[in-house]
Amino acid sequence: MLLAKVHVSLKPTVNDPQGLTIARALGRLGFDSVDSVRAGKYFEVKIEGNDRATAESEVKLMCEKLLANPVIETFIYELETI
Amino acid sequence: MLLAKVHVSLKPTVNDPQGLTIARALGRLGFDSVDSVRAGKYFEVKIEGNDRATAESEVKLMCEKLLANPVIETFIYELETI
Repeated sequence: MLLAKVHVSLKPTVNDPQGLTIARALGRLGFDSVDSVRAGKYFEVKIEGNDRATAESEVKLMCEKLLANPVIETFIYELETI
Repeated sequence: MLLAKVHVSLKPTVNDPQGLTIARALGRLGFDSVDSVRAGKYFEVKIEGNDRATAESEVKLMCEKLLANPVIETFIYELETI
């Protein structure tokens, strides 16, 4: 079994209202050292089998088709054997 | 400047309808090797200064107070100098 750890983040040039809101809320809670926050998504996908090459290309496709919006988001992933 | 990379995930025993929905959608898209999906959140918090010890304890507090719900979620974080 393989575990794909997928990070989906907004592209740096894309406005991130969720991150801005969290940064303001942290400021109000007294965390004055917070400069900025970017919010993203994190998925753990368990994949049957142990064929890393196939899994690697499948995870890339999953990101492009469903997990990320390639217009405004970037994704990175890593594979682990579990 | 320090960068905290924070992962917030549902505890393993907590039901994850978002992950289940994504897993089903991936199946419908033809990714038959997907066993299960867990969905979580990912935050990048930029922190002023270079005091790792202070930043470390502040990020822990941020998670406990705002970024995660300790009743149903767990968090892990790492600090990087940027």
